Amino acid sequence: MIIFGVDPGLTRCGVGVIEAGAYRRLSFIHVDVVRSDPHTPQDLRLLEIYNGLCAKMDEFIPDVVSIERVFAQENRNTVLGTAQAAGLAMLAAAQRGIPVAVHTPSESKLAITGNGRAEKIQMERMVARILGLNQLPKPADAADALAIAICHALRPAGAIQGGEREQHLTKAQRQWAQAAQRAGKTSSAKRAM
Amino acid sequence: MIIFGVDPGLTRCGVGVIEAGAYRRLSFIHVDVVRSDPHTPQDLRLLEIYNGLCAKMDEFIPDVVSIERVFAQENRNTVLGTAQAAGLAMLAAAQRGIPVAVHTPSESKLAITGNGRAEKIQMERMVARILGLNQLPKPADAADALAIAICHALRPAGAIQGGEREQHLTKAQRQWAQAAQRAGKTSSAKRAM
Repeated sequence: MIIFGVDPGLTRCGVGVIEAGAYRRLSFIHVDVVRSDPHTPQDLRLLEIYNGLCAKMDEFIPDVVSIERVFAQENRNTVLGTAQAAGLAMLAAAQRGIPVAVHTPSESKLAITGNGRAEKIQMERMVARILGLNQLPKPADAADALAIAICHALRPAGAIQGGEREQHLTKAQRQWAQAAQRAGKTSSAKRAM
Repeated sequence: MIIFGVDPGLTRCGVGVIEAGAYRRLSFIHVDVVRSDPHTPQDLRLLEIYNGLCAKMDEFIPDVVSIERVFAQENRNTVLGTAQAAGLAMLAAAQRGIPVAVHTPSESKLAITGNGRAEKIQMERMVARILGLNQLPKPADAADALAIAICHALRPAGAIQGGEREQHLTKAQRQWAQAAQRAGKTSSAKRAM
């Protein structure tokens, strides 16, 4: 299963592609940052990001696109552009019939380090270890994109929110559900699970 | 000149098309709302809105796309979807080589009623009068889309922000520049002027 992770951004949009095999064995395929020039008008920047994402999806033909969730309360100066970049990744996936999953940074940290509040450097080290990389993935946007792809592969099985199921969950699944609930996560991630 | 106004939204995205002739004579061409089903996943909703906007642009072949500006401090529950819908309108325009202008609601009110804080009903009446419509345009999203198209046609000539030019502006141009400045407007609207 090819997982295409996206750390959305208008200036720098991270893309990380991994393969998830049997027994949750993960391997690195690709990492890159799709960029747009901050000095060009916004419509042309969006077109640049969209074209870059489409080209990568056509190159790696993923089975699922895993996108880092954008929150409205984030930095006001960039949040709208970030949301638009996430929207373009969703559009590109939908146009290709690829299911989309949305994961929060806390879910990603929890799935990768076991701690929903892990530091950045811990995350980068774990991403490198999980994928068997000799050095830390760079730049940071790229590492985040790999993390969000790994998160989708390593999330606890059946990690779907919903109070009626919680009593049957394992500890990891409960932690996951709680992290997702704290983030006010909606149902859009369910499709790909 | 065909102007394609967009009142962005994920559930209801207003589209209003007008023609601006000589002496700022405006005529009505089309008004509609592109919708997406709130019960479907977000990626499919974005695809629906995008396809609807593309179809309308291909039908009316506008010279400019005029989009209502989205503010980060707006309603948190909907602002990200609204920003994403605006991003899709920009993408669809950029893919067709159509210039994009972004106007704030206050600019629209000022251009249409002479008052940047006009009430909704005043705006609707003026939109109907300017376009020679026998009744108020409905639904509201559609009226707003027509307003944002009219705004682009009626904005004061040379209404570009920039302190160095302000001393040469007429009163209307000054009011416009002030309204735009208050809104923290960026340069993306300049291209279409």
